[in-house]
Amino acid sequence: MVPLDLKIDGNRLRDSLEEMARIGATPGGGVQRLTLTDEDKQARDLFISWLKELDLAITVDAMGNIFGKRPGQNNDLPPVMSGSHIDSQPKGGRFDGILGVMGPLEVLRTLHANNIETKRPIVIVNWTNEEGSRFAPAMVASGVWAGALDLKWAYNRTDIRNKKLGEELERIGYKGNTACNKFPVHCYYEYHIEQGPILEREGKTIGAPKGILCLHWYDIYLEGEANQVGPTPMEGRHDALCAAAEMILKVNLLPEKMGGNMVATVGEIQNYPNSRNIIPDKVHFTVDIRSWDDDLALRAWEDVKQDFQAIADRRGCPLGMEETWRVEHSPFDEKLVQRVLNTAERLGYSNLHMVSGAGHDASYINQVAPTAMIFVPSIGGRSHVEVENTTWQDCEAGGNVLLHCILKSANEV
Amino acid sequence: MVPLDLKIDGNRLRDSLEEMARIGATPGGGVQRLTLTDEDKQARDLFISWLKELDLAITVDAMGNIFGKRPGQNNDLPPVMSGSHIDSQPKGGRFDGILGVMGPLEVLRTLHANNIETKRPIVIVNWTNEEGSRFAPAMVASGVWAGALDLKWAYNRTDIRNKKLGEELERIGYKGNTACNKFPVHCYYEYHIEQGPILEREGKTIGAPKGILCLHWYDIYLEGEANQVGPTPMEGRHDALCAAAEMILKVNLLPEKMGGNMVATVGEIQNYPNSRNIIPDKVHFTVDIRSWDDDLALRAWEDVKQDFQAIADRRGCPLGMEETWRVEHSPFDEKLVQRVLNTAERLGYSNLHMVSGAGHDASYINQVAPTAMIFVPSIGGRSHVEVENTTWQDCEAGGNVLLHCILKSANEV
Repeated sequence: MVPLDLKIDGNRLRDSLEEMARIGATPGGGVQRLTLTDEDKQARDLFISWLKELDLAITVDAMGNIFGKRPGQNNDLPPVMSGSHIDSQPKGGRFDGILGVMGPLEVLRTLHANNIETKRPIVIVNWTNEEGSRFAPAMVASGVWAGALDLKWAYNRTDIRNKKLGEELERIGYKGNTACNKFPVHCYYEYHIEQGPILEREGKTIGAPKGILCLHWYDIYLEGEANQVGPTPMEGRHDALCAAAEMILKVNLLPEKMGGNMVATVGEIQNYPNSRNIIPDKVHFTVDIRSWDDDLALRAWEDVKQDFQAIADRRGCPLGMEETWRVEHSPFDEKLVQRVLNTAERLGYSNLHMVSGAGHDASYINQVAPTAMIFVPSIGGRSHVEVENTTWQDCEAGGNVLLHCILKSANEV
Repeated sequence: MVPLDLKIDGNRLRDSLEEMARIGATPGGGVQRLTLTDEDKQARDLFISWLKELDLAITVDAMGNIFGKRPGQNNDLPPVMSGSHIDSQPKGGRFDGILGVMGPLEVLRTLHANNIETKRPIVIVNWTNEEGSRFAPAMVASGVWAGALDLKWAYNRTDIRNKKLGEELERIGYKGNTACNKFPVHCYYEYHIEQGPILEREGKTIGAPKGILCLHWYDIYLEGEANQVGPTPMEGRHDALCAAAEMILKVNLLPEKMGGNMVATVGEIQNYPNSRNIIPDKVHFTVDIRSWDDDLALRAWEDVKQDFQAIADRRGCPLGMEETWRVEHSPFDEKLVQRVLNTAERLGYSNLHMVSGAGHDASYINQVAPTAMIFVPSIGGRSHVEVENTTWQDCEAGGNVLLHCILKSANEV
């Protein structure tokens, strides 16, 4: 039994996070470390040099996922795995992803420094291209690893300069020799900033999401009739932007109308011809609906679709709608989630059973092995922005929860 | 006294319009004859060749405006002038502008063929760059001619490829030697398609606008707070696109709320970062308000500004607003407008006293000389699109009204 007073080194964790934050640092205090760029390569090289200091067995798979394995007393037992991603959004923050890589690294350093053995091996992992902001979609490499996505399809994803993911992987020297295939894993912990305001608002240090909300993406296409604004009376106009404006507000009111744990958002809009003296004749916008309850999300879509049709009919603007992506809600392993909460409690950290609104590599690994996540507060709920921030104290707290969760799981037989 | 049975040749007018429509013809049945392009030069050359057949005295001024003068019995008297523009919108129609150049050309051909003399000289004119779609602003050359705009400033207008108006004028050989300055004009008639649906809706052939509506342009800037949509609850969001959507609908309802002859439109919107899973943190949109009543337009803006501020406050989205352009309403010469209506009536064409919602070169000439316009119906009210259309019969009717208006004015002393 490992004593609860074993702690990670908060300063060492901070130093590693700060050193990583210098790679791709932006003037606004964030980082831009897009997947498979030179900055990504530089951060990967640094990560691997740190793994080597711990004598880990390092493998890189065909998707560039980096694994570092610390042996256990019985290496026939499936390992405990923990990790996240080194890549960032354009003008992203210093914590999203990298905290979940530096966290388990600090756990392994602590075990190494204290000569602590575990029954099971422990694997640290960096998943390639979690963000999906250079090559869509997001979480592509954990998806291939889990068997949910195809390797060749993933290689052919292109960025806006028409570079292929597979070519860029090769260019930076991270197309590994190992097959990108799932292997037996005892359980998986992903440590991450919350990216929302709930923990801060509730005054809690540690969050344990019971899972990830479902995600439904739709694309809406509206047609109007372009005309010069001056000579065209209001009556009889077919203004596609006015129709879209009504629809955007319907989407915004949907969560209140439907109840339950739901968010609904229009993030993207294109308007044509987008000229100040021509009535808009074409609008495209997106709808993002998320909920813990898949059925509720579907009912919400059915509901708002009727509103859309009524608005389109009234304004004489033909309407096209398509579903672009749908992911069901992903409930994590209940026992493992409870272990995160119990561990936080025993360590004296306030904690909260919650949900994750954002997707994570954890949702693919959850298809392969029992999975849980550890959240720490995002100041102001901000993420994917340069001002993204989490206190060093909270980073340390999450690291300690991760340490004891990993130890507990790694000593199970 | 010229007999009312003198008529233009409708077929000849049609032939000229069709020949012009071949220059810059688009696959969709429209024309693309952007100002000072090779297509514009080709159409100008053809126009000048036609002026020469009538032995007109041709001058090209420093802004490329082309004048063709037919002598009168007393050339000391200021001429009657009529014209419009050869340039088109990108993917514009076969009538906008060019009808008002081919119309007076057909009038002069008719006078020529019938050996009809007038007391005053008659001048036909093609104004450079009425559309403003290659070089903003619109109506720039009639503005310089009228003394409202500066020549050097006009020369320095640039297109999206950074070419200057002055250089392009020189390149196509139409930077003339004559100064671009107003000269005494007895009166000015501009023949044009309506570009709106009123004449068609009312079943009238000829429209005589009492003037051009005022035009107020505003630019609105909204700030929100960008966050990942999934982990950010609806409550506490600052969604700049939702605020904009509410404002767009307020603008749309403004004419109904204020009464009077008003149109109000949001034609252009930019949304940032415009990503489907990030809450919009910046929106820019435009407002275009037009009315016959300048004060009503100003009161409408004051009214909607209060709505904007209340929406911005409620949603916690800081608001910036600026006035971009303001043009007062331009009433044409009452006697001349009445002459258009009386002439149509005497020729047996149904007619309508109306307003013009679009700007025309006539609004600048109106600052120099008594001015009126002659409108013919736009099918479906469509213009600035390839399907822009007017029947040949209506083109001929407008030409006959123009003929007899010009004759009446040209024989006044």
